[in-house]
Amino acid sequence: MIKGNLLPAWVRNYRREWLAGDVSAGFVVGVMLVPQSLAYALLAGLPPQAGLYASILPVLAYALLGSSMTLAVGPVAAVSLMTASALAPLAMPGSTEHLALAMQLALLSGLMLCIFGALRLGMLAHFLSHPVMSGFISGAAVVIIVSQLKPLLGLQFQSQGTLPTLLASLTHLPAANPAASLLGVSAMLLLAFARGPMPRHLHRLGLALPRAQLIGRLVPVMVVVLAAVWVAHFDWHRTQGVAVVGAVSAGLPSLSAVLPGAETLAALWLPALLISVVSFVESVSVAQALARHRGERITPDRELFGLGAANLASGLSGAFPVAGGFSRSVVNFSAGARTPLAGVFSAGVMALVLMFAGQGFAHLPTSVLAAAIIVAVWPLIDIATLRHTLHYDRGDAIALIATFAGVVVLGVEQGILGGVIVSFAVLVWRSARPHIAVVGRVPGTEHFRNIERYKVDTLANVLAIRVDENLFFGNADAIETALESRLAAHPQARHLLLIMSAVNRIDTTALDMLSSLEDRLGERGIRLAMAEIKSPVMERLAKTDLGARLAKRIWLSAHEAFTALAAQP
Amino acid sequence: MIKGNLLPAWVRNYRREWLAGDVSAGFVVGVMLVPQSLAYALLAGLPPQAGLYASILPVLAYALLGSSMTLAVGPVAAVSLMTASALAPLAMPGSTEHLALAMQLALLSGLMLCIFGALRLGMLAHFLSHPVMSGFISGAAVVIIVSQLKPLLGLQFQSQGTLPTLLASLTHLPAANPAASLLGVSAMLLLAFARGPMPRHLHRLGLALPRAQLIGRLVPVMVVVLAAVWVAHFDWHRTQGVAVVGAVSAGLPSLSAVLPGAETLAALWLPALLISVVSFVESVSVAQALARHRGERITPDRELFGLGAANLASGLSGAFPVAGGFSRSVVNFSAGARTPLAGVFSAGVMALVLMFAGQGFAHLPTSVLAAAIIVAVWPLIDIATLRHTLHYDRGDAIALIATFAGVVVLGVEQGILGGVIVSFAVLVWRSARPHIAVVGRVPGTEHFRNIERYKVDTLANVLAIRVDENLFFGNADAIETALESRLAAHPQARHLLLIMSAVNRIDTTALDMLSSLEDRLGERGIRLAMAEIKSPVMERLAKTDLGARLAKRIWLSAHEAFTALAAQP
Repeated sequence: MIKGNLLPAWVRNYRREWLAGDVSAGFVVGVMLVPQSLAYALLAGLPPQAGLYASILPVLAYALLGSSMTLAVGPVAAVSLMTASALAPLAMPGSTEHLALAMQLALLSGLMLCIFGALRLGMLAHFLSHPVMSGFISGAAVVIIVSQLKPLLGLQFQSQGTLPTLLASLTHLPAANPAASLLGVSAMLLLAFARGPMPRHLHRLGLALPRAQLIGRLVPVMVVVLAAVWVAHFDWHRTQGVAVVGAVSAGLPSLSAVLPGAETLAALWLPALLISVVSFVESVSVAQALARHRGERITPDRELFGLGAANLASGLSGAFPVAGGFSRSVVNFSAGARTPLAGVFSAGVMALVLMFAGQGFAHLPTSVLAAAIIVAVWPLIDIATLRHTLHYDRGDAIALIATFAGVVVLGVEQGILGGVIVSFAVLVWRSARPHIAVVGRVPGTEHFRNIERYKVDTLANVLAIRVDENLFFGNADAIETALESRLAAHPQARHLLLIMSAVNRIDTTALDMLSSLEDRLGERGIRLAMAEIKSPVMERLAKTDLGARLAKRIWLSAHEAFTALAAQP
Repeated sequence: MIKGNLLPAWVRNYRREWLAGDVSAGFVVGVMLVPQSLAYALLAGLPPQAGLYASILPVLAYALLGSSMTLAVGPVAAVSLMTASALAPLAMPGSTEHLALAMQLALLSGLMLCIFGALRLGMLAHFLSHPVMSGFISGAAVVIIVSQLKPLLGLQFQSQGTLPTLLASLTHLPAANPAASLLGVSAMLLLAFARGPMPRHLHRLGLALPRAQLIGRLVPVMVVVLAAVWVAHFDWHRTQGVAVVGAVSAGLPSLSAVLPGAETLAALWLPALLISVVSFVESVSVAQALARHRGERITPDRELFGLGAANLASGLSGAFPVAGGFSRSVVNFSAGARTPLAGVFSAGVMALVLMFAGQGFAHLPTSVLAAAIIVAVWPLIDIATLRHTLHYDRGDAIALIATFAGVVVLGVEQGILGGVIVSFAVLVWRSARPHIAVVGRVPGTEHFRNIERYKVDTLANVLAIRVDENLFFGNADAIETALESRLAAHPQARHLLLIMSAVNRIDTTALDMLSSLEDRLGERGIRLAMAEIKSPVMERLAKTDLGARLAKRIWLSAHEAFTALAAQP
């Protein structure tokens, strides 16, 4: 992977003029990540420092092995939610056991990603279609938002599942903690303003747009610091019962490996696999989009190693599964990052916060972190793709809605598995009812088209049919029935000419069907003929009995077949 | 389904000259079915009379509703094995509870078949490919043969699973019961001889072939009767410890419905579903093959009702799931059956046996029934299809072997589910790595072919590529990468012409890919063009942004596109 030199290419070819961009991007991303990292750690049911740990060593590991110049890895919403959901049945959130399991989950995911990389299985990710991924992310965003209503408003209840939690949140609304709600809701409004219209307003007031955007990005940190100072100063934790993050243990993460036993392995392998795939798909799509903007390329198989190493590092340093995040990577990119050195700086910011400012978070109210999460995941609810698929492809829309509903109603794992199954089923279902066209020659050309849509020439003794699908077990019978009914409508046909331009494969079941069809047609005095068979299909067919029987009835093009058959009775 | 008249068409249009064939076929099948029905009941872990019951009312129900003239329904090997396997974890074979569960399983399967019929879901059966079905039947035959070694040789041991049972049978061989083994093995040799070479020998001795075959078919009954008489006469049950069938309760089946509770339903729905599908696939393929021989047609949706009614009747009359059997249907057909009236006569034979000869089976040794089962299922081990698929299609061979191994090692249900999953995965895997060809025009024609295989004309400024697969989420990235690498090898190309003759569908994921490809190519001064788009694909594409952008770069045929693009820079 790294040939001849242990240092990655970007280190060896580093140019001095890149440094300014890398340093400033690293600083911005690092500061922006502090509250986000704390928030996602709490979402995953882990102590706050775990979120900061997840933004140090994993980032360095990815910088060494990953192939993207600008992808920023760390805790992300969907993967944090999947971690919480995988561990919920196994341990109490906040317990030492829970943390140990989260570390093992990260180790397992990292190991799986590295194995996929070694097997060059980057294509595994292609089994998640865009609509399934979109439905999954939207569903995860809804689940996260609902889960944050309780801390946002300082509510007290126990519940499981998204719909029951939503219901409980609404019914317990009158019992909300006023102080926590005040802090949470005002933080939410402020953050939404900072993310949305504020930079434009600042720009209109005369500030340069990049600077206005930079200020918008640093608002969350200011909000968090202000909220912590406020709660500490007025002692709202004790006087108003406002829940706070509590002590963040100071100091850098220590390394330790907790290897999972057989029982843990049995419970965690499926979540770990799903986390690997989701984290890979999310990271690669972000990395690819950014690389294209600058004409760079990423290598999916190296991304598997980069993310694998990041997750292994996370599992070894007291943290939980990570991925390449969308918003932080975009910030990194637009703040001028040229190489993963930016990540090294952002990791440095985290380390400094941990060493010198850890105690500052003790008074940070959780309602403000909940507000930060809600504002961060709200834009992930993807209505545009839903509208697009509804318009373009109903089957894809069904897969999207099924995944979304599955995630919200049944849970993240069931939702994503259900979505994959639905998208496969749609695929087979469609191929099972292929489009079949009776075709004729467009006058004055050698081109053949559907007789129902174009003015074409036909021959009385030849029924020319184009089957628009690969022939396989799922449609062999349907095609046979369709051919017979077309033949019944053309009783004078003595030749059934199959135009095979759209057939890329004939499986055993379909070969059996064609063979018995040829037999029966022969008994009725109708000869089966074929044209435009592709070479890969022809090579296989030539080896079979049917191929031998048809040998003299196969033409290169439909035009040649038409010309030859016109001369026959 | 049955319009205007409650009687099926074959009754209304019955012709006197068909009667002789129906009567003689009914008699032959009825007599042949007696030992087979007893044997399959024991295989399913049920009292012997249940097998006879399964050959009376179900046959009459199918005669009323089914669409095949010659299909003979009743207990069959694969479905009996599936029944045994579904009930094994729920009740002791031979217990009253076991029988009640078998009846409920038949009711459930019957209900599912009728629902599938009402929903016109005959196509569900197409999800079982020929190789998966072949692997399943071969695997079931091996499982059945191994399970019969114990009664065949009078062995005594407890074991679960096919491989452990085989091992236990071999290690317990020295403890075999000599008398039972003698009867079993000699019956087996005799039956194998009667099934195989005997009719030919009789024919060579001067007997007419049909008569010789008839004698061959009646040998099992003679063997069974002889064995029962022998054991009764010498009292081998008590003196030699030869296991016997025991009392068959005399009299016709009585009707009773035991409806499954919620818990039973949860345990039985999946086996019932698999039994429905297997019984439908097996029955329809036999019925179709026989119908074609006589130029008759069957209606898959009516077959669903026929089989559904047969299973409901079975569940109501103290029996277990049934299907259309291969060997009995072939016998029925070749013995001259013209209509389901033959089935009515075979049901009559069963009823007479139950009323007057039930006690005769009390001394029938189970080792002889085991011999009958082994000889009946041996020919189901299907090496020919394995050889055929190995030669023709490796993917299909993998699905076949996976199904076979799954059935033998894991069990019938797991095996068939695994086979379906493997055949789906092979399908997606193949489409994920599509064949892509750079093409040119065959000189003097309008036909385009692969430049690596044919001598063709090309244009320096146009790269014409034919993608041999539908564009979908599983191959969108792979196709994008392939197109980019072909473009890199043709740096002078200013137009990328995609020939879409093999593309029958573009899903949302692939549309996104094409759209971003068009963008990026445009930035590099390369124009994306398309030709030979099929109308159903074009209609969808026209509604999208990409379709609007491409509008003037889409040609009907590759030839037109080539001519037009040759004139451009």
